[in-house]
Amino acid sequence: MSEQAIGVFDSGVGGLTVLHELRRLLQGENLVYLGDTARVPYGTKSPETVCSYAVQAAEFLLGERVKMIVVACNTASSFALDHLQQMLSIPVVGVILPGARRAARLSRGKVVGVIGTHGTVSSEAYPRALRALVPEITVASAPCPLFVPLAEEGWAEHPVAHLVAQEYLAPLLEKQIDTLVLGCTHYPLLKPTLRAVLPPSVALVDSAEETALEVKMRLSDLGQLNPGTRGQWKFYVTDVPTRFVQVGQGFLGEPIEPVTRVSLPICPSCEQELTS
Amino acid sequence: MSEQAIGVFDSGVGGLTVLHELRRLLQGENLVYLGDTARVPYGTKSPETVCSYAVQAAEFLLGERVKMIVVACNTASSFALDHLQQMLSIPVVGVILPGARRAARLSRGKVVGVIGTHGTVSSEAYPRALRALVPEITVASAPCPLFVPLAEEGWAEHPVAHLVAQEYLAPLLEKQIDTLVLGCTHYPLLKPTLRAVLPPSVALVDSAEETALEVKMRLSDLGQLNPGTRGQWKFYVTDVPTRFVQVGQGFLGEPIEPVTRVSLPICPSCEQELTS
Repeated sequence: MSEQAIGVFDSGVGGLTVLHELRRLLQGENLVYLGDTARVPYGTKSPETVCSYAVQAAEFLLGERVKMIVVACNTASSFALDHLQQMLSIPVVGVILPGARRAARLSRGKVVGVIGTHGTVSSEAYPRALRALVPEITVASAPCPLFVPLAEEGWAEHPVAHLVAQEYLAPLLEKQIDTLVLGCTHYPLLKPTLRAVLPPSVALVDSAEETALEVKMRLSDLGQLNPGTRGQWKFYVTDVPTRFVQVGQGFLGEPIEPVTRVSLPICPSCEQELTS
Repeated sequence: MSEQAIGVFDSGVGGLTVLHELRRLLQGENLVYLGDTARVPYGTKSPETVCSYAVQAAEFLLGERVKMIVVACNTASSFALDHLQQMLSIPVVGVILPGARRAARLSRGKVVGVIGTHGTVSSEAYPRALRALVPEITVASAPCPLFVPLAEEGWAEHPVAHLVAQEYLAPLLEKQIDTLVLGCTHYPLLKPTLRAVLPPSVALVDSAEETALEVKMRLSDLGQLNPGTRGQWKFYVTDVPTRFVQVGQGFLGEPIEPVTRVSLPICPSCEQELTS
């Protein structure tokens, strides 16, 4: 059991920031990553659609006989985590709770900012998680939809990114947040820009790091940590791999291989794989 | 036959700029619009994936008994138009050739710029169409991937859009273009910004307007113009309509209704509609 892989999925390259942390912290683990690049992004899509895509991704990873699934996407964690946890018999870890826990610990004034996609912000998943931890906490949220295309274009530290960050963060700074949760797996690439725009007193919470810690703890509790030291990884994508490999390298910090293309969804009626 | 609707499709709201022009020019025509919002955008996806999505959209519109299909998306026109024209017995009109024709007519110095998605630019569809019309023409292309999210966020005239436009257009202006094709159906919203960044001598070509003219000409040639004066329209989307209706209003300039959600693709093996 402990040698089985951890399955990780996201709509595209964003979840590679989580994969990077998992690899750093859990060098013995085998990792299987699925990027749903034929249907990326999830952040502007409806709860129903994101939830159905997440179920299809999880079903694919189950077919890879994984021991745990990490939902390495804030939007999918917001809309589909409860459903996946009820549906599956293996543990499913999302990125919301680990990030919220860390923010609750770090925030002295108990005023926390959360940035994410339209989907994540409108779901209220972070305010719910934060209030469950610290009932008196104040949460100020802002959707930052341009950060994803900026990160994917390699413009994360471009003057345009600075200008966009100033505008997005202004209402949060007015509310005097002392901690900011990066509620989208693309945003760690924007850290230098966010750091430049924020006062030094505001702490940044990177869900990727916290999620990797949570995974380690959960596997350890279950006695399922892989004792090896050289885990393997493989990548699946739902569109052709070219752009994923090219853009993803900047997110993972390592070459992305081997990559295989798969077709989702599997038709629920006849169980045929649909060519996309 | 003439009373049958014209079918129009795009990945999302962009094609509504084409629908707007069709409505303006052809007031008697009934119009059926499909926005593939569960899988938007097409501009960063592979030729194979975009082509398969376009085929599914066209098959859906055929089910609506349309007399003509307008591919109101530059990426889908670039990758799938030939295939659709071969596959279908009704006329299929794309947005590339109408825009290229107008640019070839307008350009005095025969140096034309083309801006579009990564997909459209890498397909070389515009340079091919332009060179077929004017063999000695020079074409300079630039992908402008941030324009789509800027338009969808309502930031088309924001200082950020100006800064982005300056950066994207600089290499085209260095090549001394005298005409610029807006090779993406989202870009008409950025006209004021582009106009402010470009010298007044550079002519802008809006494919939406040209495509509507082409549709009128083709229907007239076929004797299929609807003689009525009050065409109806209806809208289909593949995700829930909320965001489409909200963002699309700015693209269409009119309220968007009635809207119905449909599921694509239809499974080719068992012909079940897949819930998304």
